[in-house]
Amino acid sequence: MFKLRRSFLKNCLALAGAAVTGAARAAAEEDKSALLPPNVPPWTRSVGRGVVSHPYGAPSQFEADVIRRTVPWPTASSTSSVSFTPLAELKGIITPSGLVFERYHAGVPEIDPDAHRLMIHGLVERPLLLSMDDLARFPSVSLIRFIECPANGGTEWRGAQMEGLQFTHGMLSCCEWTGVPLSVLLEEVGVKRGGSWILAEGADGAAMSRSIPLEKALDDALVVYAQNGEALRPEQGYPVRLLNPGWEGNTSVKWLRRLEIGDQPWYQREETARYTDLMPDGRSREFTFIQEANSVITFPCPEKPPRARGRYEVEGLAWSGRGRIRAVDVSFDGGVNWRQARLKGLVLPKALTRFSLMWDWDGSPALLQSRAVDETGYVQPTLAQLRAVRGVESIYHKNAIHTWRLAENGDVNNVQIE
Amino acid sequence: MFKLRRSFLKNCLALAGAAVTGAARAAAEEDKSALLPPNVPPWTRSVGRGVVSHPYGAPSQFEADVIRRTVPWPTASSTSSVSFTPLAELKGIITPSGLVFERYHAGVPEIDPDAHRLMIHGLVERPLLLSMDDLARFPSVSLIRFIECPANGGTEWRGAQMEGLQFTHGMLSCCEWTGVPLSVLLEEVGVKRGGSWILAEGADGAAMSRSIPLEKALDDALVVYAQNGEALRPEQGYPVRLLNPGWEGNTSVKWLRRLEIGDQPWYQREETARYTDLMPDGRSREFTFIQEANSVITFPCPEKPPRARGRYEVEGLAWSGRGRIRAVDVSFDGGVNWRQARLKGLVLPKALTRFSLMWDWDGSPALLQSRAVDETGYVQPTLAQLRAVRGVESIYHKNAIHTWRLAENGDVNNVQIE
Repeated sequence: MFKLRRSFLKNCLALAGAAVTGAARAAAEEDKSALLPPNVPPWTRSVGRGVVSHPYGAPSQFEADVIRRTVPWPTASSTSSVSFTPLAELKGIITPSGLVFERYHAGVPEIDPDAHRLMIHGLVERPLLLSMDDLARFPSVSLIRFIECPANGGTEWRGAQMEGLQFTHGMLSCCEWTGVPLSVLLEEVGVKRGGSWILAEGADGAAMSRSIPLEKALDDALVVYAQNGEALRPEQGYPVRLLNPGWEGNTSVKWLRRLEIGDQPWYQREETARYTDLMPDGRSREFTFIQEANSVITFPCPEKPPRARGRYEVEGLAWSGRGRIRAVDVSFDGGVNWRQARLKGLVLPKALTRFSLMWDWDGSPALLQSRAVDETGYVQPTLAQLRAVRGVESIYHKNAIHTWRLAENGDVNNVQIE
Repeated sequence: MFKLRRSFLKNCLALAGAAVTGAARAAAEEDKSALLPPNVPPWTRSVGRGVVSHPYGAPSQFEADVIRRTVPWPTASSTSSVSFTPLAELKGIITPSGLVFERYHAGVPEIDPDAHRLMIHGLVERPLLLSMDDLARFPSVSLIRFIECPANGGTEWRGAQMEGLQFTHGMLSCCEWTGVPLSVLLEEVGVKRGGSWILAEGADGAAMSRSIPLEKALDDALVVYAQNGEALRPEQGYPVRLLNPGWEGNTSVKWLRRLEIGDQPWYQREETARYTDLMPDGRSREFTFIQEANSVITFPCPEKPPRARGRYEVEGLAWSGRGRIRAVDVSFDGGVNWRQARLKGLVLPKALTRFSLMWDWDGSPALLQSRAVDETGYVQPTLAQLRAVRGVESIYHKNAIHTWRLAENGDVNNVQIE
């Protein structure tokens, strides 16, 4: 490892020495007294706050800009709206629970877990009404999985451009979820012959509901009560939600109060008037559950422009609702030439996967793109390829290759190229 | 998977049907109107709060008891003290940042990241003074790793018994950490011949400092700026800390301001008067860096007693500073008989690993123990074995097999058996 680093850093120094390390070295030379008075900073000359002054911790005051944000949005009110995860500021693959994007249809209910029940009924042998304590008795599993709203990036179908990574891709998050496999609960109730669909219904004022095929329930759906180690956050479905890994986020019904087993889908509002993909011929694709392979470059991006020419680690996130990411390619010239990126850290199925590659920016304008390939061999399409098949009427499942334009002055903007 | 669950659940029903599901079924039968007025709860009959009412989210008000706690502790003040992670309440392997235990020696400094510098100097070719922006330019890695204070459980060497899992094992956490490999930074400065130790020093009022062998730096030490996806929390070293995976927590110096390369250890206060292991002959073991394999049962535990006889998923956490957990055995009779547990979810090196097994509690008193084995073949010792080698004078590195006594009434208490 040592040898490997040595050769890498020789390049780094040769190419970017002035920008990265030259200035730092000069400062070290000039500033040998940096750690002596009067340069000792106030936090070293004083005693800070004590333990459990924050029994439940919070970020530094200097991170006050790292928050969820919303935009003027074509929804009726803030209680049926969306907020976006600040992806530009995040590292690794875990999204901290306080920054997971929000999407709901009647505001966030404050549910008393002792009063909440989950009913499982319909085409079953033994209907159940479960308290949260009952649910905790079943064996649980923990999985790191992404959740993405199918409308993520949806304004771009027809060319409207959001500015900023937080808004182009921020209806996306990845957490460690803990809960009971839905298959275990279905065994408990005993699905009757003919049972093939499940209605999942929330306890919020919208009673948000979706029809889920039994196959998904028996595959990897979970009834989830914890997120990143602790109880679900209220806006993520406290005390219990469904999780359909890799599927459009709204199928992972929050504040879950009812699972009804039937023999056909229910055609609820959120799977007819909404969350269907309008095609060029005026018909709609329905039950388009899977979030296909997608990716985006997170550095550089509009919120994190490079400050000077030199060597950078270009980073991004890739994900696929069908399984693991196999590879990610990156282009700096709008898709003419491609280089394979390195997959960093854990590469888990249906989870965010971080990729990176080193890039020497010479100060010229550039068009940065990433293209994900998943383990099924599916290749993330260009916008032209996606529009050729699906037209421009949909607002869902836009997973086309995304382009950042890097200008000579370092500004980064969202552009669409065919 | 369906078939597997079916056979498992037949057992579950046969053995625990009355306790787990019988009551729930009866309720479902009686309560078919549970989802109709007047039984519709207020949160379904109203609209909740809107998006970004909490730009940075927080747990439900019903989780207000899930917090870090401290105890009357033999330290001078709350600014040189410890708080404990509520392990009994946690799921999976990620510790949410707000609940990671605290340990520091001069309070939590509130450091302005723009003013903070990390100096790397001593036996190096090219000393560096790095801003946080400089540091962000280097290629980063993300790793899920535990951090444990070596005093975790230390009161038990001589038989003092903390009550509650939060206090017996709560100086333990596991996060996704992101930062720059220390080996990369050492390449950048160029370690001179003879450089073999590194002093890591914090910018807090205690200037907490430890001597780290160069080998660890070249192996897997990281200079870390992010935790669970976002910037480090203030009490975890914001804006930058050292991380020595698998080593005693205090070597992972927080608020890192200085790395000095030398040819011998510095023998600072926190590696002489403290954090050495006093042996029966009056001598001290020094530089006992590695946190050896350890484990604890998290359910049942004093905070989470079983309410009735029946089938339960007994769960726990295991970890080793030497690598992956290979196996965990569980005993219900104080170590006479052992059953192999299942390792649940991700099994990562130097990370918390969750284990479980199903257990039918017949209401008899029981002595619950877990025993971890790591990938080196190291087997977690009994308390008698540990005392035979190390005596009872130390307060560090107590990794003996832990015992919970389960009484007939369901109470769970901490006991020590040889």
